[in-house]
Amino acid sequence: MTVDLYCFGESGHSYKAALTLTLAGIDWRVRYVDFFAGEARTPEFRTINPMGECPVYVDGDLTLTQSGVILDHIARQTGSFGGETDEERREVLRWLLWDNHKMSSQVGVLRFLMNFLPEDKRPQEVIAFLQGRAKAALAVLDGELANRTWIAGGAGPTIADFSCCSYLFYPEPFGFDRGDWTHIDRWLSDIEALDGWKHPYDLMPRAYRATA
Amino acid sequence: MTVDLYCFGESGHSYKAALTLTLAGIDWRVRYVDFFAGEARTPEFRTINPMGECPVYVDGDLTLTQSGVILDHIARQTGSFGGETDEERREVLRWLLWDNHKMSSQVGVLRFLMNFLPEDKRPQEVIAFLQGRAKAALAVLDGELANRTWIAGGAGPTIADFSCCSYLFYPEPFGFDRGDWTHIDRWLSDIEALDGWKHPYDLMPRAYRATA
Repeated sequence: MTVDLYCFGESGHSYKAALTLTLAGIDWRVRYVDFFAGEARTPEFRTINPMGECPVYVDGDLTLTQSGVILDHIARQTGSFGGETDEERREVLRWLLWDNHKMSSQVGVLRFLMNFLPEDKRPQEVIAFLQGRAKAALAVLDGELANRTWIAGGAGPTIADFSCCSYLFYPEPFGFDRGDWTHIDRWLSDIEALDGWKHPYDLMPRAYRATA
Repeated sequence: MTVDLYCFGESGHSYKAALTLTLAGIDWRVRYVDFFAGEARTPEFRTINPMGECPVYVDGDLTLTQSGVILDHIARQTGSFGGETDEERREVLRWLLWDNHKMSSQVGVLRFLMNFLPEDKRPQEVIAFLQGRAKAALAVLDGELANRTWIAGGAGPTIADFSCCSYLFYPEPFGFDRGDWTHIDRWLSDIEALDGWKHPYDLMPRAYRATA
């Protein structure tokens, strides 16, 4: 059975799922969503995901949304990337939640406001505020990665790494520069060196077309 | 063994843990953190939680942070509130993640900015932006609760309910009025009717003292 992943290139949450599927060696294919043309808000897409969001994972009768649920499902199904002990599994969940709460939730919105809104519609006070929060999250991540190879602390990478890293591989500026964060930079290099790793724009087609 | 919960009344994330411990019938006690006086940033507290956040759950040798991890641990330990089937457990995780990503992360910051910052330091553009995002999250929650009693869809309440509801019981204004949301209002009443339910300020002492 081939897994269908509803996604588009710019979606960092989609990349978490696409990367985990790829590294787990699962047969999957892109179901491209023309997000910036409004496809995620159409009635057809809402029948797949009422929240109008990507990614959506479809495997036969099973439809999953929320990237963390998809990652947890892949880890359980394959026995890979989910942590080996109870303590590691708790750490994996802790960092998945932290990513959703402190990292991707801030950085995803920030990158959107700074790159995918028309220049005269970018709310500068909001951008400055979110940059402050993003910087605090990056400082936490960098500090933790000073102490260990992988964020959840085990011998190998887990879905917590694939969740936390996703937005940090994108080229669009949002106030993150790898050169500023020694330990994050080392960790991203370790992820890039994993067998089968691909950049988000090599896994999923881009949906954004700049307008004048 | 008595569980120690490092917490303070205004912390919606702490309330998730305090409420779940209470409803699960676990013997626990408040370890009060004088948050607004900066106690969470002291070296002593950082040895308990390097991230400087509440809640922290301590049961003998086991220390847990991130409210979702604490809730998941309580559900596993007691066999209560975690969902009965694989599908329910995935739904519980989905709503825990959604809460961290879309609900508490926005509403918690918004309530802080609107109530616990000095009036002349409240960033109005940021507040308006976060209110828009909070309203979108509330609309999703209200729409989903129109279809079922509990958010994860099973026969009884789960930790997903206790996570998503937490900030909605607080009296401080942040743009949420129960009267505006029929299904959320019904659901909050159902939670209040659970045996042992208590308001956040009846479970944990308040830390905020307004200054002129």
